[in-house]
Amino acid sequence: MTDNNDETIVALATPNGIGAIAVIRLSGRDAITIANSVWKGKDLTQQASHTIHFGHIVDGDLILDEVLASLFVAPRSYTRENVVEISCHASGYIIESIIKLFMKKGARSAKPGEFTLRAFLNGQLDLSQAEAVADLIASNSKASQQVALQQLRGGFSTQLQTLREQLVNFASLIELELDFAEEDVEFANRDQLKQLIHDITRIVGRLIQSFELGNAIKQGVNTVIAGRPNAGKSTLLNALLNEERAIVSHIPGTTRDTIEEVLNIQGINFRLIDTAGIREATDAIEQIGVQRTMEKISQSALLIYVFDAELITLNELRTDLDSLLTPGVAMLMVANKMDLLTGEAAKMESIDQFFRTSGLPDYQTTFISAKEKLHIDDLKNKIYSTAIKDQLTGDETLVTNIRHLEALQKTEEALLRVLGGIDGSITSDFLSMDIKQALHYLGEITGAVTTDDLLENIFSKFCIGK
Amino acid sequence: MTDNNDETIVALATPNGIGAIAVIRLSGRDAITIANSVWKGKDLTQQASHTIHFGHIVDGDLILDEVLASLFVAPRSYTRENVVEISCHASGYIIESIIKLFMKKGARSAKPGEFTLRAFLNGQLDLSQAEAVADLIASNSKASQQVALQQLRGGFSTQLQTLREQLVNFASLIELELDFAEEDVEFANRDQLKQLIHDITRIVGRLIQSFELGNAIKQGVNTVIAGRPNAGKSTLLNALLNEERAIVSHIPGTTRDTIEEVLNIQGINFRLIDTAGIREATDAIEQIGVQRTMEKISQSALLIYVFDAELITLNELRTDLDSLLTPGVAMLMVANKMDLLTGEAAKMESIDQFFRTSGLPDYQTTFISAKEKLHIDDLKNKIYSTAIKDQLTGDETLVTNIRHLEALQKTEEALLRVLGGIDGSITSDFLSMDIKQALHYLGEITGAVTTDDLLENIFSKFCIGK
Repeated sequence: MTDNNDETIVALATPNGIGAIAVIRLSGRDAITIANSVWKGKDLTQQASHTIHFGHIVDGDLILDEVLASLFVAPRSYTRENVVEISCHASGYIIESIIKLFMKKGARSAKPGEFTLRAFLNGQLDLSQAEAVADLIASNSKASQQVALQQLRGGFSTQLQTLREQLVNFASLIELELDFAEEDVEFANRDQLKQLIHDITRIVGRLIQSFELGNAIKQGVNTVIAGRPNAGKSTLLNALLNEERAIVSHIPGTTRDTIEEVLNIQGINFRLIDTAGIREATDAIEQIGVQRTMEKISQSALLIYVFDAELITLNELRTDLDSLLTPGVAMLMVANKMDLLTGEAAKMESIDQFFRTSGLPDYQTTFISAKEKLHIDDLKNKIYSTAIKDQLTGDETLVTNIRHLEALQKTEEALLRVLGGIDGSITSDFLSMDIKQALHYLGEITGAVTTDDLLENIFSKFCIGK
Repeated sequence: MTDNNDETIVALATPNGIGAIAVIRLSGRDAITIANSVWKGKDLTQQASHTIHFGHIVDGDLILDEVLASLFVAPRSYTRENVVEISCHASGYIIESIIKLFMKKGARSAKPGEFTLRAFLNGQLDLSQAEAVADLIASNSKASQQVALQQLRGGFSTQLQTLREQLVNFASLIELELDFAEEDVEFANRDQLKQLIHDITRIVGRLIQSFELGNAIKQGVNTVIAGRPNAGKSTLLNALLNEERAIVSHIPGTTRDTIEEVLNIQGINFRLIDTAGIREATDAIEQIGVQRTMEKISQSALLIYVFDAELITLNELRTDLDSLLTPGVAMLMVANKMDLLTGEAAKMESIDQFFRTSGLPDYQTTFISAKEKLHIDDLKNKIYSTAIKDQLTGDETLVTNIRHLEALQKTEEALLRVLGGIDGSITSDFLSMDIKQALHYLGEITGAVTTDDLLENIFSKFCIGK
C-alpha cells in the first residue's frame, strides 16, 4: 500500500451525479506537468502555488472542456505533493474523458483513500487525523461533526502523544538498566514508574470509557419507544419529530431497516425505534412479539417507556417494569395523556410515588400530553441528559473509532502487566517488553507504528478521491 | 426573474452524494465580505483574485469545517460578480450548516440556473451560450459534448449574429423610407433586399434542417432492430455491444424504459430498441405485437432489419419489406448467419439482387454473422454513415435546441412574408414589421431580445448551483 509513492494519482474528488461542477484531483511529483501537457492557457508550470487559472483541457486538437485549474505546489498541499484540481462541467462523459486523458499522460487511478494516505505518509496528518477525515465526511449531526473535527485538528493525538512520550522516557531508562545489568542498578525509580503507569492507566481507562458516548455521538443513540397498545407511542413519535427532524446524510449505513426515524436533540442523533405494543402475552405469537421487543431494547442505549396515565393501574406498571428493565439500558418513564388527568392530582401523585418507591435509582416520571404537545421540550431535555449530558465528564476527548478502542484496550492490558511486573519484582528485560508493547499499541493509533496491513485496512474504507 | 441582482446568492455547486469534497458557491456584491465574516484565516477582502486560501468556517466559536476558499474578484468570475467557492468536506451535514450560515449572514439560496442567468445578464455569455452550459453538463457522448462546447464557445451565436446585423441594416433603410414616406423614395433597393432575404432564408433553412442531426447527436439516435423470430436479433445486439458499450450519464432522461441498450459509434450514441420478432400475424394478439413494433419504428431514425440469410425466402423478404418500410426512417438490411451460407454464392447473389431491384433507392445488403462476429465493424460503419455521416453537409453548425428550432422556424416564416411582400409590392411599413419580427425571433436565440418568461423558462430547467 505504501509502494509507488512516486506515481501521480488521479480521481474524481466530488460525488457522482447531477450538479454544476465536478472536481478532478491530481497529486504527485508530475501532477503539474501532466496537467500542463493537456492544457491550453497559461503555462501551469510557471504559476505560483494557490492560484487559479482558466483554460481548456485538450486532447490534441480536440477540446474536452473549459475548466478552472487550481494549483498547489509541494509541499503546500493536502498531500504535501504537487496537486492540481480541475474544476470541470459535471457531465459523466466529460469527467471520464478528462481522467482517461490524464491516465494516458502518465497518471494512474487513485485507490480509495490514497490522497489521505499520502498526506499521512508525508507527515501532513497522523493516522487518527487521517481517520477523522473519513469521519468528517460521514458526519451527519453537529456532535459527530464536532468530534471528528476535534480529532482532525489533533486534539486526540496530542493527548496520546504526551502519554506516549512519558512512557518512552521510562522505557529508555529501563533499557539503560539492561546495559548495566551486571551492576544491578535501577535508573528507573520503581515507585515513580508505578505512579506514572497508574496515571497513564487512568487516562487510558477514561478514553476507553469515552467510547460508549463517542460512539453514540458518531453513530447516533439507539432509542426504543415501548409501551402498551394505545399508550400513545406513535403520537409521541410525531410530537418529538415535529420540528426537529434530524439531517440525515446519504452515506450508506447511517440508517438501518429497523430504524424508523431520527430525532436530533442538541446536535445528537437519536435513532428512534418504534415497537409493537407490549401486553401480557396470552398466546405463542404474542410471546414472540414481546421477545422481539426485548431484543431491540437490549441492543439500545435508551428505552422510553410510555404509558397511559389515565388508564394504567399500578399493578400493570409493576408488570411492565419487571419485563422491560434491562441492565445497561437507561430507562425514561413517560406518563402520557396528562391532559385527561387535569385535577386528578391524586393519580399523578400515586404514579410518581410508585416509581420513587420502586427501587429504581434516582427516578422521576415525566408527565406529558403527546396529543396536546405538553412538556415535549421537557422530555427532549431529559432524553438528552439521560443519554449524553450525564455521561459527560468535562474531558471532551472522546474515542469514536473501534480501532482506537481496541488499541487502547491492548495498551491497558500491557500497562497492567507492567504494574504486576513491578509488584512481582520481575527483571528489567520483561518490564521493558511490556512497556514496549504498550508503546506499540499507542503508536498504532497515531500512526507512529504502522504496518502495511493496518494502512490497507484503514484506507481501503475511504471513498476514492479522498 | 431578473430582479434582485444585488443580492448575494449561495448554493452547492457539486452533486449531492458520497465524495471527498463539495464546493459551495457564493456570488454577488457581498460574496467576499459574507465569506470573510465567518472566516478564520487571512482577511479574504484583502486577497487577490484567483487565489486559494486555507482556513476555517466558523459560527462564532464553533468551527464548522476546515476548508479552502477560492476567490474571484468581479468582473473576473463566471458571473462577473464577486465569487467565493468554498471547498469543504462532502458531508451533507457540513454542507447544510455552511450554506445556512451564509444565509444567516445575508446570502440567499440560489434559484436553478441563477449563476448562469447572472453570467448572461452581466454579458459574460449570450443566451445560446448559457443554454450550452446545461447541454454540456448533460452531454453523454463525444459528439453531444463537442456540439455543446462549440455552442458554448460562441460558434452558433456568431453565425446568427452576422445574419441579424445584415437584417438590421435593411430594417434601418426601410425605416428611413417611412420617415420620407411622402416623397415616395426607396432607399432599400428591393432587388438587393430580395437577394439578401433569399440568402438569409437559405442559411436559416439549413440551420433548421440541421436540427434533426443535431438532435440525434444530442439525444442519441433511436434505432429499432426488427426481424423474424430466430433471425438473430439478440445475438446481433450482443455482438454490437461487445466492446463499445456507451458511456451513459446519470442524468435523468438519458434512458427511457423502452430503450434497452446504448451503443456508441464514433462518438454518437445509438439507442438500440429491440422488438419482439415480427411474423405474419395469424391472430389478434400477434397483430397487436406487430402494431407496437411499427409504432416504435415510426418514432425512430433508423431501422435495422435482420433476417436469416440461410432460411429466408424472397417472398418472405418482400412481405417484411412491405410491412416495415416507413417514410422518413432510414433502413439497413442485414443478412445474418452468412457463416452458414459459405459456398452458396447463388443465395447471397439472389438476396442482393432482390434488394437492388426492389425499388429501394441506393440499396445494399450487409452480410454478417452475429454469432461468429463477422463484418460487425463493417455494419457499425454503415449504421454511422446512414444515420450521421451521410447527413453532414460540411457546415458543422448544428441546432440542437428545440427553442432555437422554433425561433428559426418563426424567423423563416417572417422572412417568407417579407419576400411575398416585396413581390406583392406592399408598403414599407408592412415590410418593416415583418423584418422586425424576423429580427425579434433571431434575437431570442442569442438573448438580444428577452422577456422574463423566456428567461424563467430557460433557466428554471438548470440544476441549482449552476
